Amino acid sequence: MDITEIIARKRDGGELSEREIRQTVEAFVCGEVGEGPMAALLMAVVLRGMTPAETTALTLTMAHSGDRLDLSEVPGVKVDKHSTGGVGDKTTLVAAPLAAAAGVRVPKMSGRALGHTGGTIEKLEAVPGLTTALDPDRFRSQVAEIGLAIAAQTEAMVPADKKIYALRDATATVESIPLIASSVMSKKLAVGADALVLDVKVGEGAFMRDLAAARDLAGTMVEIGLRAGRKVVAVITRMDQPLGTAVGDAAELAEAAKTLAGEGPPDLVELAETLAGHMLLLGGVVEDAEAGRARAHEALVSGKGTEKFVEMISAQGGDAALLDAPDSLLAAALRMPVEVARDGFVTGLDAREVGLAVRHLKEASRNGKHLCGVLVHKKVGDSVKGGPAVTVLGPPGAEQAMEEAAERVKRAYSVGEEPPASPPLIVETVSG
Amino acid sequence: MDITEIIARKRDGGELSEREIRQTVEAFVCGEVGEGPMAALLMAVVLRGMTPAETTALTLTMAHSGDRLDLSEVPGVKVDKHSTGGVGDKTTLVAAPLAAAAGVRVPKMSGRALGHTGGTIEKLEAVPGLTTALDPDRFRSQVAEIGLAIAAQTEAMVPADKKIYALRDATATVESIPLIASSVMSKKLAVGADALVLDVKVGEGAFMRDLAAARDLAGTMVEIGLRAGRKVVAVITRMDQPLGTAVGDAAELAEAAKTLAGEGPPDLVELAETLAGHMLLLGGVVEDAEAGRARAHEALVSGKGTEKFVEMISAQGGDAALLDAPDSLLAAALRMPVEVARDGFVTGLDAREVGLAVRHLKEASRNGKHLCGVLVHKKVGDSVKGGPAVTVLGPPGAEQAMEEAAERVKRAYSVGEEPPASPPLIVETVSG
Repeated sequence: MDITEIIARKRDGGELSEREIRQTVEAFVCGEVGEGPMAALLMAVVLRGMTPAETTALTLTMAHSGDRLDLSEVPGVKVDKHSTGGVGDKTTLVAAPLAAAAGVRVPKMSGRALGHTGGTIEKLEAVPGLTTALDPDRFRSQVAEIGLAIAAQTEAMVPADKKIYALRDATATVESIPLIASSVMSKKLAVGADALVLDVKVGEGAFMRDLAAARDLAGTMVEIGLRAGRKVVAVITRMDQPLGTAVGDAAELAEAAKTLAGEGPPDLVELAETLAGHMLLLGGVVEDAEAGRARAHEALVSGKGTEKFVEMISAQGGDAALLDAPDSLLAAALRMPVEVARDGFVTGLDAREVGLAVRHLKEASRNGKHLCGVLVHKKVGDSVKGGPAVTVLGPPGAEQAMEEAAERVKRAYSVGEEPPASPPLIVETVSG
Repeated sequence: MDITEIIARKRDGGELSEREIRQTVEAFVCGEVGEGPMAALLMAVVLRGMTPAETTALTLTMAHSGDRLDLSEVPGVKVDKHSTGGVGDKTTLVAAPLAAAAGVRVPKMSGRALGHTGGTIEKLEAVPGLTTALDPDRFRSQVAEIGLAIAAQTEAMVPADKKIYALRDATATVESIPLIASSVMSKKLAVGADALVLDVKVGEGAFMRDLAAARDLAGTMVEIGLRAGRKVVAVITRMDQPLGTAVGDAAELAEAAKTLAGEGPPDLVELAETLAGHMLLLGGVVEDAEAGRARAHEALVSGKGTEKFVEMISAQGGDAALLDAPDSLLAAALRMPVEVARDGFVTGLDAREVGLAVRHLKEASRNGKHLCGVLVHKKVGDSVKGGPAVTVLGPPGAEQAMEEAAERVKRAYSVGEEPPASPPLIVETVSG
């Protein structure tokens, strides 16, 4: 293998073979190809793109680069779910229990917070005692026994993706649809689920800010999945303002619990039921997505979703009793109400700014990071006329940082004379 | 300085400031910026280009990155000469003595062989005893006293160019006009000549294969020079077949000596006199290039060019007596005559193949590498009808490698029924 010949071909807009991609990635992981050549190749990919065959080859090479989770001995259809990341996006904590309660098995490996978005792992870890570090045997048996496990990806999985991502982060080569798609899908394919429902976020609070890019990403991920022999569907959804009314680890966990208890905000309920519906469809439980959504709704109103969530939390060592009074998770938090400057209707609430405000608040807090957050009382379209629009949450001692977060969130609001037209949350569905 | 922000801007087609370029290069040289980010930036430059201001900033940063040769105390106008590299291109060894004999001072730092092309340093070193390792004081005083010195660039000069070039070579980021131009010009600007004549080769045996690229390179280098306050002119010349009749270190040195003695091949004479003429024009010795060429011709026919060359060789410790009988330089060489397969007219002689044949022959020879070479008896347009078209030269013991070189050179010939139209050697002149 001549690495400069490979880089030159991509630089000039040519296509690389599956073998060339595999050898290059393997040589990079073992140190035979250095950071210089790999970064040059990545930049050439950013500017020249990759064909579906190339993208799939890269994905599979990364998926196979470390430990994999073999679920073939686990009975039933295993359906995974993934979101490209948003603010206030606790959907997994609702949709996964609903889908598991309604009859599919959900083996979910989640990531940690990235950029302005939160991570499912940190949210779950707000439950005292709960562990997300499940070894493969424990993960498998939990999926087999209760049909649901949410764990952190282990260090030994997809090492090639980890090493390549670290280089991309340092070389301004993150922004590439094929590279983003292959990174996401490599992690999913390293876990042996049969099917996958993707929530591709679009908007100011998402990594994909425009619809064309979101469609491209969704289509690319679906195609990789199909080429790898998995059933995949992608749902493109709006991420302009935070999802639901809570941002922050404990606050989002509490909101997820309340949503499963039938007291959720309408956008979160709609999204969780829709995604769970697609999971049930791919899992063969229902005939179409609408029937899937209805089945998810039944699981919610019957309390079976909450039961499944409690089962999972207990299995992972968490104190499930807390879910009976979700707000107790925030009992120790300081609360700082924030009013916006003028009266009118909320015309915008910049999710990215809210996400960054919470992230910086966490970074500034020594302890009780899970208490940091924002409760959103006024969302787009709501009338504001005195009274707080949000409440900033934080641990004792973080008052100064909470003031800064409050200022930032205040600036994230736009207020006008008329309520704006609000685009639908769910934009479209992409399947193979 | 945020290196990812800088890479991202270039990736997206934006422009970098002089300060950003300087800080990036300095940080790369001292190891603060690693090979990954630098390679990503270089690939972005290859695909997005650089503005003249960016290219000049890069050039000056590299020129200032190490030792520089200050010639300000040397009286007179100092004029340098550079070729982008060809096969059989011993023009410096003729043009520099002619220009120096006719009244400008020529402080020349030369490179070694690169790719299929030879290097002036190796050719000069074919003279027994001669050194090209001149320390700055010796270089300066030689230029002051005899008006001519040809030395190898020292390790301590342009370290940034050396480090960046090594990375480019490993990352398929060599092929970029701004990067090639800044590399060449940084080396030239680190030597304090007042003016510079560039010979930009175009054709199958050159690094620039088409005229548009050669024009782009010539224009970019001239612009950098002007922005840096130097007088610069570029002459674009054909490099399809080898220049003159000799390829190889000792063979080319012998041909240069014979040319100065009035027995040179017409293409080499034309090119050397033309370039020396431009050197005299930039040096203020003559009013126009044609008068310069005439002055160079006078220096040739009067024997003053040879005198200057002998002076230089003696000053650098070489046995100048050898120049009285230049062929004695090849006395120890084996000679292998090669005939081409059919009769007719030479329609092509691929300089790149000839250059590579000599390069491989040198690599295969343990001793006497300077003896390796090819004497070209039949050039484009010549009739071949029996008799050798070339003679392959090599040291005793290299018979096997010489056979291989002979085969390669034979294949480099194209023979047809009619002599082809031959394009002029000198294509055009580019000045600011």
